[in-house]
Formats: sequence, C-alpha cells, structure tokens
Amino acid sequence: MPTIVVDVMPKAELLDPQGKAVAGALTRLGHEGFAAVRIGKRFELTVDAADEATLATVRQIAAEILSNSVIEDVVGIEVVE
Amino acid sequence: MPTIVVDVMPKAELLDPQGKAVAGALTRLGHEGFAAVRIGKRFELTVDAADEATLATVRQIAAEILSNSVIEDVVGIEVVE
Repeated sequence: MPTIVVDVMPKAELLDPQGKAVAGALTRLGHEGFAAVRIGKRFELTVDAADEATLATVRQIAAEILSNSVIEDVVGIEVVE
Repeated sequence: MPTIVVDVMPKAELLDPQGKAVAGALTRLGHEGFAAVRIGKRFELTVDAADEATLATVRQIAAEILSNSVIEDVVGIEVVE
C-alpha cells in the first residue's frame, strides 16, 4: 500500500530547545561544523490509494491535526512507493 | 549554509503507540482510508559544508546519537540545498 510522508518542523523563528540540546551535545562530543540542529516530526500515513482526493485530505489533516500551526509548519507532503 | 536531513522512524516490527493514537483519531474524525500511521523524527542539521567527510560524520552521528538502534531505524540521510 502506498505511504504518504508528512514532515512537520518547528517554525524557523521559534526556539527549538530539543534541537539546541542536540547541537550542544554534538559540540561537547567533539563534532565540529554543525551550526544548528532543529528537530521535527515525520509522519508516515499508509493509505489505501494515493489519489488526488486522498492527497487533498492529507493536506487538510496535516494542517489541522498533525501540526500545530501556531508553532509548527508542514514542510513537506510526498507520496513514497 | 547546507542542511542535512536525517529521518529516524520506529522499527517496523515494534508497536508505535503515538502513531496508533493518531490513526484512531483520524478514524474517529471520519477520515477513512488510512490503514496505519507511524510517527518518527526529522532532524535538520545545518552544516558548514556538505562534503563527503561531513556526510560520513553525519552517518555516524545518526546511528549513534540521533537514533536508538534498539527501537529505531535511520531511514534517510539527504543533503538539501
């Protein structure tokens, strides 16, 4: 069955404390060259059919249910296999 | 600066209670056609340069720091812009 991937990230203008913590850990562990880390969510929705109607529904679900539009952006919706 | 995206998902053979909850919510809200939902993490690492050495470091970091190999798989590492 096809899978639709929805990527949700914290808005760029907001602090992402979880990402900051990981970036700090990388520096402490000796990994140079990482300017910033941001952490978001990846939803894999297994659907019966990846037709245009389903994609429209997924766009609506992504905006209304999978993300909190006050603090997050839906950065990608794509059909895989 | 280039960004490297690392996608981490719960292993397929493990229960994903968060995804199950979302799948149940979708059904309750009247959205048909969603067989399963799984929720993972998307890391955006902003790097100074996306060269081969950095990518090798990111592969190591993804396996050792960003994911818990007992319950999660790194499903993708890709350079964006």
